Amino acid sequence: MSYSSRVREILQKTGAVEGDTLQVRSDGHDHIGVLMPHHDFSHPDVVVLKLKSGYNVGVKVGPTSELTVVSKGSTREKTAREGISGKGKKQVAVLGTGGTIASYVDYRTGAVHPALSAGDLVATVPEIADICDVRAEVLFSIFSENMRAESWQRIAEEVADRINGGMEGCIIPHGTDTMGYTSAALSFMLEDLTRPVVLVGAQRSSDRPSSDAYTNLLSAARFIVDTDAAEVVVLMHSTSSDTSAAVHRGTKVRKMHTSRRDAFHSINEAPIATVDFEGPITFQGEHRRRSAGKTIARTAMETNVTLLQFYPGMSPTVFGSVLRNSRGAVLAGTGLGHVSSDMVEEVRKAVAGGTTVVMTSQCLYGMVDMNVYDTGRDLLTAGVISGGDMLPETAFVKLMWVLGQKDDEKSIRELMTTNLRGELTSRREQHERA
Amino acid sequence: MSYSSRVREILQKTGAVEGDTLQVRSDGHDHIGVLMPHHDFSHPDVVVLKLKSGYNVGVKVGPTSELTVVSKGSTREKTAREGISGKGKKQVAVLGTGGTIASYVDYRTGAVHPALSAGDLVATVPEIADICDVRAEVLFSIFSENMRAESWQRIAEEVADRINGGMEGCIIPHGTDTMGYTSAALSFMLEDLTRPVVLVGAQRSSDRPSSDAYTNLLSAARFIVDTDAAEVVVLMHSTSSDTSAAVHRGTKVRKMHTSRRDAFHSINEAPIATVDFEGPITFQGEHRRRSAGKTIARTAMETNVTLLQFYPGMSPTVFGSVLRNSRGAVLAGTGLGHVSSDMVEEVRKAVAGGTTVVMTSQCLYGMVDMNVYDTGRDLLTAGVISGGDMLPETAFVKLMWVLGQKDDEKSIRELMTTNLRGELTSRREQHERA
Repeated sequence: MSYSSRVREILQKTGAVEGDTLQVRSDGHDHIGVLMPHHDFSHPDVVVLKLKSGYNVGVKVGPTSELTVVSKGSTREKTAREGISGKGKKQVAVLGTGGTIASYVDYRTGAVHPALSAGDLVATVPEIADICDVRAEVLFSIFSENMRAESWQRIAEEVADRINGGMEGCIIPHGTDTMGYTSAALSFMLEDLTRPVVLVGAQRSSDRPSSDAYTNLLSAARFIVDTDAAEVVVLMHSTSSDTSAAVHRGTKVRKMHTSRRDAFHSINEAPIATVDFEGPITFQGEHRRRSAGKTIARTAMETNVTLLQFYPGMSPTVFGSVLRNSRGAVLAGTGLGHVSSDMVEEVRKAVAGGTTVVMTSQCLYGMVDMNVYDTGRDLLTAGVISGGDMLPETAFVKLMWVLGQKDDEKSIRELMTTNLRGELTSRREQHERA
Repeated sequence: MSYSSRVREILQKTGAVEGDTLQVRSDGHDHIGVLMPHHDFSHPDVVVLKLKSGYNVGVKVGPTSELTVVSKGSTREKTAREGISGKGKKQVAVLGTGGTIASYVDYRTGAVHPALSAGDLVATVPEIADICDVRAEVLFSIFSENMRAESWQRIAEEVADRINGGMEGCIIPHGTDTMGYTSAALSFMLEDLTRPVVLVGAQRSSDRPSSDAYTNLLSAARFIVDTDAAEVVVLMHSTSSDTSAAVHRGTKVRKMHTSRRDAFHSINEAPIATVDFEGPITFQGEHRRRSAGKTIARTAMETNVTLLQFYPGMSPTVFGSVLRNSRGAVLAGTGLGHVSSDMVEEVRKAVAGGTTVVMTSQCLYGMVDMNVYDTGRDLLTAGVISGGDMLPETAFVKLMWVLGQKDDEKSIRELMTTNLRGELTSRREQHERA
């Protein structure tokens, strides 16, 4: 969707172009900011202004609205648009996966502004050029909920390529819906990771005044340039106010709210770091550090893996068949890892037929322990693998990856019960934290 | 499992019987407490003592252990065992659903001590006789994970019967694994509820020193006798320490930790009340109050309802078929309520074929809003019903119940989108809380 004829006319009349600072009076309110590119997601009557605070605000231009050019676009923004800003600083790759980033972002809509250049990005968030030399490109543009194994494979390969090619790290703007699944997938696929990979998203699209796109993106750049971390992480607001971001381990993070800016939580551990928007980056606990060497993208995945939450009355007929027809299945059982007796029997049959079944808990917090109650012991006897304190989603992604790497049951079981990327906390560590 | 010959011999030799206060020296430690009944879940070498603190502790009797009778069982416990304690106080029904309660509890094991009498209960938690006149019985004994629609129906009918028969309220000891599902089911089934129904459980079985069975049970009795509430609620510890219990609305509560005593959380609202173990009961927000009239158990349920979490790569072939073969299905989509494009198509086909499909969010917190993005709008066009801020589990139980009550699509949609038992918070209320 492009501008309405009303907006086109008023822009032409005043000679306003992107990068200029405008004053827009609308409904009795004045808004002053830099005119940002219009994107298809926006309403045709809305102009997007970047305020001094860094936030973008969408202002609706009505019949009585007045628009004046306060100042023409600065040289900095023009040079930025030509991609020469940030030169001499550390290079950071920005690999777009769907929609666009920064001011264009709604991170989810693939339709928007498909060819994002580094220049566009720097023009949108010019402060990033003070931090690093951005090398941005769009890998693909799909809705976050349409991400799947092939998407993860493509991202992992491109990340390994950029890191081995000398980039200081990668920023992956990503729709928030499935960001936790992707961060887990990249965590397992990227072996011997030597540099940080930071997934960022926004819970508010950037044409809304409270967008978190801007601060999350800048914080990601700072995290890459200013720390020694070399993990796959998700960086999102840590509170509902605009003060700091939390850096979550890619295998321990889950979207826990549909709309809050601090929707992402580390489950069963603290975030590995906090980025104060106007202060330092503080680490908590352990993190993987940078190293020399080559990052390997080991991306093979078994896609015939199923994730099922148990619930009362779950049909053994229907889901027994689903289990038997899957190469692998992750169950989110109740409590310490239980399902009903009739499902235990179906699980037993499925495992006997060659399905790898891993148990996690729908409680999300805490860890599976199938040694406490009879049902758990029956499941262990049936051959179910304990998922420990892994998130159901992480166990699902890990199982896809493990089954892509290994064929024999012994290796599969061993890998699933070994902590590879911080996804599994030992019982002792859990206890010490409780 | 009964006592080992070693324990049987030492009990015989000393003449110790249940109700006597014993001192047991084992591994250099002294334990003094009242000998509790042995149950099948306990180790054959373990005697269970009720300490002065109210907690039960299991003490292993080894070859070198010494056991002496400090004092014979008190008259109070003897009279309690005959069921005459608490006389003259308000009557409270305790309806066991699986395993046993209080000192016998492991709330989950059906095998244990199947015929629990009121006397047994009062002997186990004698303090309850200071609060109310307990009328306890065991409805059935099944593992919590084996609960299903028939179990909920039976409980609802018995509850309505007891309440209409003059009981001040009902306590339902229940395994914690599926307690949230049962509390939702009872909430919908019990219409015009005039008295409180309190589900209680324990995260630590009562032969462990830190069991929460005792305090949760006493708090449930206090909540029934001392307040004006008339809702189905879950009462469990509110912190990991032993200070207070939270009273959660039956449709808003979820088990969020596999093992912590404060595993249960109200989602998208605060608990309706807090019971300080040594202080007052404090209400937050609104609650339903007692009334005269008759409580109706409307228990019909459609059991062909499926609960599915969407995940990347979910097979449209497999789950399209599952959807089409279900009378109703609740999806836990990503974010604001999304699934992949290929699953949208399967949902459309299923709805067209007569399946009622309700969307919730796997985020758990927040509310579904399918008007924000294209995928959501496609799902609405396909005929999907928004679950608002309902928990996936609550929406699943509600859909079973609604489909049991109504046949026509219009009534089903209207009931699913109407707040019946506090399960749905309006968007405005959500906003005010955020």
